[in-house]
Amino acid sequence: MTRHVRYSHNKRTEPTAPDSSPLVHYGLIDGGTVYETESMYGGEKGEGVPLSDVRLLPPVCPTKIVCVGRNYVDHAKELGNPVPVEPLLFYKPPSSLVASGDDIVYPPITEQVSFEGEVGLVIGRRARDVAAEDWKQYVYGYTVINDITGRDLQKKDGQWARAKGCDTFCPVGPWVVPQREVEFETLHIRTWHNGELKQDGSVRDMIFSPGVIIAYITQFLTLEPGDLIATGTPPGVGLLQAGDTIRVEIEGIGALENKVIRG
Amino acid sequence: MTRHVRYSHNKRTEPTAPDSSPLVHYGLIDGGTVYETESMYGGEKGEGVPLSDVRLLPPVCPTKIVCVGRNYVDHAKELGNPVPVEPLLFYKPPSSLVASGDDIVYPPITEQVSFEGEVGLVIGRRARDVAAEDWKQYVYGYTVINDITGRDLQKKDGQWARAKGCDTFCPVGPWVVPQREVEFETLHIRTWHNGELKQDGSVRDMIFSPGVIIAYITQFLTLEPGDLIATGTPPGVGLLQAGDTIRVEIEGIGALENKVIRG
Repeated sequence: MTRHVRYSHNKRTEPTAPDSSPLVHYGLIDGGTVYETESMYGGEKGEGVPLSDVRLLPPVCPTKIVCVGRNYVDHAKELGNPVPVEPLLFYKPPSSLVASGDDIVYPPITEQVSFEGEVGLVIGRRARDVAAEDWKQYVYGYTVINDITGRDLQKKDGQWARAKGCDTFCPVGPWVVPQREVEFETLHIRTWHNGELKQDGSVRDMIFSPGVIIAYITQFLTLEPGDLIATGTPPGVGLLQAGDTIRVEIEGIGALENKVIRG
Repeated sequence: MTRHVRYSHNKRTEPTAPDSSPLVHYGLIDGGTVYETESMYGGEKGEGVPLSDVRLLPPVCPTKIVCVGRNYVDHAKELGNPVPVEPLLFYKPPSSLVASGDDIVYPPITEQVSFEGEVGLVIGRRARDVAAEDWKQYVYGYTVINDITGRDLQKKDGQWARAKGCDTFCPVGPWVVPQREVEFETLHIRTWHNGELKQDGSVRDMIFSPGVIIAYITQFLTLEPGDLIATGTPPGVGLLQAGDTIRVEIEGIGALENKVIRG
């Protein structure tokens, strides 16, 4: 399994550091070693360094994060929401990105921080007006996303900019696995909350498939390489508390684990 | 008046070209000449070139565009909406940016494309947990924004990702004027639709001032240099048709003019 990472040799580099930072590199993991690449898609170019010596960053640096809400019937129902007839889209800001291993900071403005494990699509080519059946030409790979949500803010605000957009509310990673190496339809999302299995959903239960989602999005906007699409969460979401550990695992892709701390 | 621009010598450069593109430059306008600068805030470094020889781009390359909805009482009322008790926030994606002079493309997915002239705040320093009274320390300057909106999509979708996020739905520019050169409270937004004055509002009628907006936003997310805040539109919004010209002018800042074409 090919694992594309984004990383820094300086362990204090912030997860939101842009690609233009000289501290930020792309690489491939092979065993316990990271080999630098020219870009997310490039081949190896450098000497290897031990994985334990680097800080993993969110594996992409997106210009936008487009998310699909209520894309599993049983999740829409568990929150008492109608099942959408078209993809329900919203954005998370890039400032919300953190990597696997980083802390999710529970902010004072919400009392209901929820986890939502999801499959992330990583765009590989500029995409506009894509036909649903061509979606694989535009998705470079898959990653794991935890769409952290202030449930009370979501209800109160109407628009979800705060509920979905707080700093650290978009854990992503730990890496990107190329689309060509994965049979999408076999993927399962499993979320463990303090070691207890809470979500266990198959992507076969998505209401809107990746092709339909990408066709719908690119009907009105242009996706750029590195952009992220969060494809929605299966049922089983729940509330987090400071001190909790939340782990989203997608077999064949990877496991994204974060701890919750008080902000 | 200092006018900071972002531009390309190649007139075919796209408005969404990133700062990392070798075709993209920052500069200052002096008379009919553009002098290149090291960055948006930097001093002159290069020889001047005639303004007529360059293509103006959106004057910033934001990681996010945070917008305030219904920030003028009379605009909230004209659309039959309640007056917000807290800032109503939403995001526009960077893919929606175009410059002054670029076309607004009327997409097939909406039948009600509206203009909304607004003052844009350009962030100059990373900002988190800013006190309202300190807002000027974080705002480098002002620009003009037209928050183009698919009114029918806004009603139908609930979340405004499509309504506010279509390609070309965020004309910005033509330049950034430093905050220290402008008395904010004196600003008026005037919007001409095919030469007819439709909006004429004073920023004094904002419900939430820039300080309150920035304090509210930075309570939950980190603003980065170059990020844009659209501060809301005064009353007088209206629908556009293909062939229309829409011009948003803020005296002391500049005039943003775009033509509407069918997509």
